[in-house]
Amino acid sequence: METRAAVAFKAGEPLSIETVQLDGPRKGEVLVELKATGICHTDAFTLSGDDPEGAFPAILGHEGAGVVVEVGEGVTSLEVGDHVIPLYTPECRECDYCLHPKTNLCQSIRETQGKGVMPDGTSRFSLNGEPILHYMGCSTFSNYTVLPEIALAKIRKDAPFDKVCYIGCGVTTGVGAVVYDAKVEPGSNVVVFGLGGIGLNVIQGARMVGANKIVGIDLNEGKVEMAKKFGMTDFINPSKCDNVIEAILDLTNGGADYSFECIGNVNTMRQALECCHKGWGESVIIGVAGAGQEISTRPFQLVTGRVWRGSAFGGARGRTDVPKIVDWYMNGKINIDDLITHTMPLEDINKAFDLMHHGESIRSVVLY
Amino acid sequence: METRAAVAFKAGEPLSIETVQLDGPRKGEVLVELKATGICHTDAFTLSGDDPEGAFPAILGHEGAGVVVEVGEGVTSLEVGDHVIPLYTPECRECDYCLHPKTNLCQSIRETQGKGVMPDGTSRFSLNGEPILHYMGCSTFSNYTVLPEIALAKIRKDAPFDKVCYIGCGVTTGVGAVVYDAKVEPGSNVVVFGLGGIGLNVIQGARMVGANKIVGIDLNEGKVEMAKKFGMTDFINPSKCDNVIEAILDLTNGGADYSFECIGNVNTMRQALECCHKGWGESVIIGVAGAGQEISTRPFQLVTGRVWRGSAFGGARGRTDVPKIVDWYMNGKINIDDLITHTMPLEDINKAFDLMHHGESIRSVVLY
Repeated sequence: METRAAVAFKAGEPLSIETVQLDGPRKGEVLVELKATGICHTDAFTLSGDDPEGAFPAILGHEGAGVVVEVGEGVTSLEVGDHVIPLYTPECRECDYCLHPKTNLCQSIRETQGKGVMPDGTSRFSLNGEPILHYMGCSTFSNYTVLPEIALAKIRKDAPFDKVCYIGCGVTTGVGAVVYDAKVEPGSNVVVFGLGGIGLNVIQGARMVGANKIVGIDLNEGKVEMAKKFGMTDFINPSKCDNVIEAILDLTNGGADYSFECIGNVNTMRQALECCHKGWGESVIIGVAGAGQEISTRPFQLVTGRVWRGSAFGGARGRTDVPKIVDWYMNGKINIDDLITHTMPLEDINKAFDLMHHGESIRSVVLY
Repeated sequence: METRAAVAFKAGEPLSIETVQLDGPRKGEVLVELKATGICHTDAFTLSGDDPEGAFPAILGHEGAGVVVEVGEGVTSLEVGDHVIPLYTPECRECDYCLHPKTNLCQSIRETQGKGVMPDGTSRFSLNGEPILHYMGCSTFSNYTVLPEIALAKIRKDAPFDKVCYIGCGVTTGVGAVVYDAKVEPGSNVVVFGLGGIGLNVIQGARMVGANKIVGIDLNEGKVEMAKKFGMTDFINPSKCDNVIEAILDLTNGGADYSFECIGNVNTMRQALECCHKGWGESVIIGVAGAGQEISTRPFQLVTGRVWRGSAFGGARGRTDVPKIVDWYMNGKINIDDLITHTMPLEDINKAFDLMHHGESIRSVVLY
């Protein structure tokens, strides 16, 4: 079949809207008609050429929502008409990782996914007879795409595609880090470094689970109003205090019970650890640092009871937890509507990248 | 009253055996007759002068066992004749730390303890009318000593002082790190960096809780035999393999479920983290690094599921957990006898430091 798609032919160049060829689903695969997709910093990172694992030509996008159009041989958990969210972290429920209680990092199709192909080693996309690579196992910048059955979360049919697509990455990354990785308890004091989309989702996750103080840290005071709307109770601008760690310790009666780094800066990662409460404070790294950069601290920080951990896709198991997060949105426990600042047709997708680069959007969504 | 004690008059000089004056217990305090005390690296560290918080003259020692001789006003949990182990980490059961489920770092008397005095700000020891400081709230290098009630664990009366004194520090630090901090599950693969006294106690703690592989890492092959006796199943000499992390990953089917750093070297701390299994491996720092030294790693190590934490006094709550560890010893679950390699009278205590510095002892114990 044919589908409209935004193709990344080369690093550093705008996406090109093309009509590409899409082969039908093979064994264990599912054809999905996407109804909406978010545009994430990770797409921009890969498109920029800075991603050492980025490969071209490819169809980017990993934050979508859509409808099952056709299922391949052996697919049992999904049928035509099901509403789904593609998962760049799949959940096979069979590998050592899926069967371990402490991780969501299913490894069953990691190798082929990393190479931009389906688990059988081939791509379903092509243009003029030349294959085009998949991206993060999703390729949501296409009206139609093919995914493995294990990489699709089945969601309720009354959830609006143009909002819940964001649960495919950003919402789950932030809310999940609070719920599944840190396991923040009610009454905890939480500190959030970076008030972008991920930080706002951490904040609303902390509010949802009953955190006490939710302290936001950002250099940009323009983000304060929105952060307060999402549950931030206190704000610190590091450029306006002598020592951000001491300011946090003062505000939280000795330090954060949980801190979250949502920037990707190794210096703020250190601050996020060291602002934690002696004895029990835990710091969670969500942001992605530049290649080769390292975090450091004195080991005394850990020996006196602080814990340093990280989070990927919010620690969520996609097929199990994403439908629950959709419920939380539908039940009003979390707010996605206000995070979707821009929508556009696929033809205008390059504008979404421009908005992101200029800091003018929280999340832009393409509507098919 | 008078007591014989080993006094550290100056950093870098041998201890001096003296008859010192000891005032009786004040409110909330207890007079203890020590029957045995271990000599620990921390005593040597302070005596060396390298400890920036070391103060002199002082009576060192923090790993003792003895009998209650007199109780001060208001003491309710102990009576004359009780057998006790002094606690350098007390347990008041009232402070924010004691009431928090995740820490054992009671802060109730931290400030005065750090200054070498009792909670009322004064010392009970003196010589020729000049005060001598307490050390780590214990001062077990004295036949008699005074401690706060909250810094004494009451233990069963059939436990031999010359063995269970080691539970006052080393045994609990190693076994506790496994049981209370890492919470190692049966079937886990455990990696232990450093096969000294702490490492051996980590190993036997891991064996006690049913670990699968227990891999020891040390440059000194002379330690292999003893480590095997305590439960080590595999040994790696880093000087005999190209890459210790890869060797561990090979041996443990992808990495340690739990690793423990028992050396105090920031490079092995990094190795201990990076040899952990992707997705869930947790590394526990027990060793104390030199002043100002820092640990580093790429944040990717944490974002892909590894956890970095530390342990002090094995995460044990002294009054609650030390009596249980005494039971484990008495029930044969842990071996202390083989770790006590030398015993001596107080007069020979400087020999214990010599043995330690020459690597000829695991633990030396002074018998009063």
